[in-house]
Amino acid sequence: MAHKAQSALPISAPTSLLTPIKVPQRLLMGPGPSNASPRVLAASALPLLGHLHKEFLDVMDEIKEGLRYIFQTNNSLTIAISGTGHAAMEAAIANVVERNDKVLVAVNGLWGARVFDLSSRYGAKVTTIKKPVGQVFTLEEIEEGLIRDKPKLFFITHAESSATVLQPLEGIGRLCHKHNCLLLVDTVASLGGIPIKVDELEIDIVYSGAQKCLSSPPGASPISFSPRAWDKVKNRKTKVESFYFDLIQLANYWGVDDQPRRYHHTGPISSFYALREGISILCNEGLENSWRRHKENSELLWNELQKLGLELYVKKKIARLPTVTAVNVPNGINWKEVATFIMQKYNLEISGGLGETAGKVWRIGLMGYNCTKENVQLITAAMYDALQQQRQGSVKSSL
Amino acid sequence: MAHKAQSALPISAPTSLLTPIKVPQRLLMGPGPSNASPRVLAASALPLLGHLHKEFLDVMDEIKEGLRYIFQTNNSLTIAISGTGHAAMEAAIANVVERNDKVLVAVNGLWGARVFDLSSRYGAKVTTIKKPVGQVFTLEEIEEGLIRDKPKLFFITHAESSATVLQPLEGIGRLCHKHNCLLLVDTVASLGGIPIKVDELEIDIVYSGAQKCLSSPPGASPISFSPRAWDKVKNRKTKVESFYFDLIQLANYWGVDDQPRRYHHTGPISSFYALREGISILCNEGLENSWRRHKENSELLWNELQKLGLELYVKKKIARLPTVTAVNVPNGINWKEVATFIMQKYNLEISGGLGETAGKVWRIGLMGYNCTKENVQLITAAMYDALQQQRQGSVKSSL
Repeated sequence: MAHKAQSALPISAPTSLLTPIKVPQRLLMGPGPSNASPRVLAASALPLLGHLHKEFLDVMDEIKEGLRYIFQTNNSLTIAISGTGHAAMEAAIANVVERNDKVLVAVNGLWGARVFDLSSRYGAKVTTIKKPVGQVFTLEEIEEGLIRDKPKLFFITHAESSATVLQPLEGIGRLCHKHNCLLLVDTVASLGGIPIKVDELEIDIVYSGAQKCLSSPPGASPISFSPRAWDKVKNRKTKVESFYFDLIQLANYWGVDDQPRRYHHTGPISSFYALREGISILCNEGLENSWRRHKENSELLWNELQKLGLELYVKKKIARLPTVTAVNVPNGINWKEVATFIMQKYNLEISGGLGETAGKVWRIGLMGYNCTKENVQLITAAMYDALQQQRQGSVKSSL
Repeated sequence: MAHKAQSALPISAPTSLLTPIKVPQRLLMGPGPSNASPRVLAASALPLLGHLHKEFLDVMDEIKEGLRYIFQTNNSLTIAISGTGHAAMEAAIANVVERNDKVLVAVNGLWGARVFDLSSRYGAKVTTIKKPVGQVFTLEEIEEGLIRDKPKLFFITHAESSATVLQPLEGIGRLCHKHNCLLLVDTVASLGGIPIKVDELEIDIVYSGAQKCLSSPPGASPISFSPRAWDKVKNRKTKVESFYFDLIQLANYWGVDDQPRRYHHTGPISSFYALREGISILCNEGLENSWRRHKENSELLWNELQKLGLELYVKKKIARLPTVTAVNVPNGINWKEVATFIMQKYNLEISGGLGETAGKVWRIGLMGYNCTKENVQLITAAMYDALQQQRQGSVKSSL
């Protein structure tokens, strides 16, 4: 039990709160959050502005413009949701889905399962197409589902970070539109690090998070709606259940299509500063350079790990995610001990699996600010050291 | 049109994003956001941790413990919602209300109107008791409503910041429970600055924001549920529509009642750091000292403004909000010009009215870090200067 400071009030101040916060510096190379850039952290600490001050509205306008570049879209409704990645996922579903709408979800890992749950909560009739974890969907499989279920919305994950597979998106948008269906894509673990061109791909709704390739803290999450999706929202028969995520109101607050701005909610000011700065860094580098950097460093990581005798979880190079890599845990090695050793000795986080990959793999992230050659060398050295340690340990214990 | 940088991509990086963010330092003395404490801003910029790292879970535990002190409650379900104040409002409604539940809303300004809309969205049968803007409710009026409508939930605003009135809360909880109803209270503009003892007052659900008396940036919002309210949530017949705000999942992620923690969503890490620090500052000062400081400085402000010949919007001292003060705009004075003059000359924000008070009053906030004697003197001097300016201006223009 914590000791309490003296007070005349029934409940006293906890002593743990009487000292300033202390937080260790750590290299976060799991599937995310990834480290924020120091420039972004400095932006987080800038003085607050009123949420309707001109200078703050300028920051919001810059976020809109910058996100259009990063998504490669002309969608006017391109904004940030005032919450973390799951809030953007929810904003997408809550606005586009009405009760009894048919939704088809591609499930090959955790995120599809989440969208299945979320769509059901909002009253949709949800069906799925499924693939084993670690596999992606072909256009034929998707079209079969679209013909079978006639959904109004189809969901698929671009970067399935629980199984570390990359879903090719070419052709899916056209297919959806042929079958009179909107396409919703999760790009939380890919946006900024892996090529994605929203307009070219005919994606209708796309969202992401700040804490991966955008090198920002979680708290404000990019989202974009095509004119087709925006029309569906504007022509809803019923109000969106959620007020906080109501796009009609949000579009107004964000001044989308040059609407005069109206107070809707108080935006998370510091999170918007941070996101603006993460976007700015990506604009400075250039999207194509960032995509190339993520590709080159991930390939270097794959080579280095294979040189250590380790096997990658996703066999086909073309299907591997460049932002998060799953590595099979060899027989006789305790994945948790390795991760703990690396955290304790190197102050470096790598993660285990999630869902079906739990206990079977390590997951190593190379995203945004953290995606450097130096970090690849560091993680390789740390893995080598940890595996040596494990093998010596098992030699000792088998003597 | 903004100039674009060169790129082979269809959409180029906007030049406005090629330079680092710039934000002016400003004294925010409107109804909020109020300035965050420098210690809080420094905490915002600390390095990210994983959202399930022990050190981060410790920060979350400290937030829980600190909020129990600030709310004066033993409620185990006392956490922060991962969004701004409206997100907490929505989390309260979304979890406690099921379709066709009866909800009674006390409307005497903007926040009641918002809760009316929000409850309707979530399928409640909503009725109201109403008072003109600037007036508060008596126990008799509330009991009449409870008897008439037999609601399962009653909503009232503690600090109505649009009209700057303070609703006495004594006795309302007991009344609600007598009539088998839960009590939900909005304390966005009061928590930390005005006495409120949640357990003593038998409040069932209470929420607030970070950007007022907690001296933190908006982005993580305190909320607390009594065992009675928590039971209602646990015994729902239907799942909460919202996944992001689902308390069953959130309680689990926050380790409430010593549950083993499970990943639900990625928390807004930096916002939690900041909120923890804002809470810590309040623990250091002591709640009673903070309440006294807000009372003394607001009374000083009222005296100083009256000495300038200005009238306060709320006549009865007992009903006046100590955190935000509305001042009547005298005849012949342009409120907007005064506010603009003060912003331009003193870099200081005061605000106009909201809803029915728009154009009729200025609103001056004295909250958290900003609530000091020095700021009262500054705002008084600035008001004096601005009024002089206006009168000279009107003298000139009438010559």
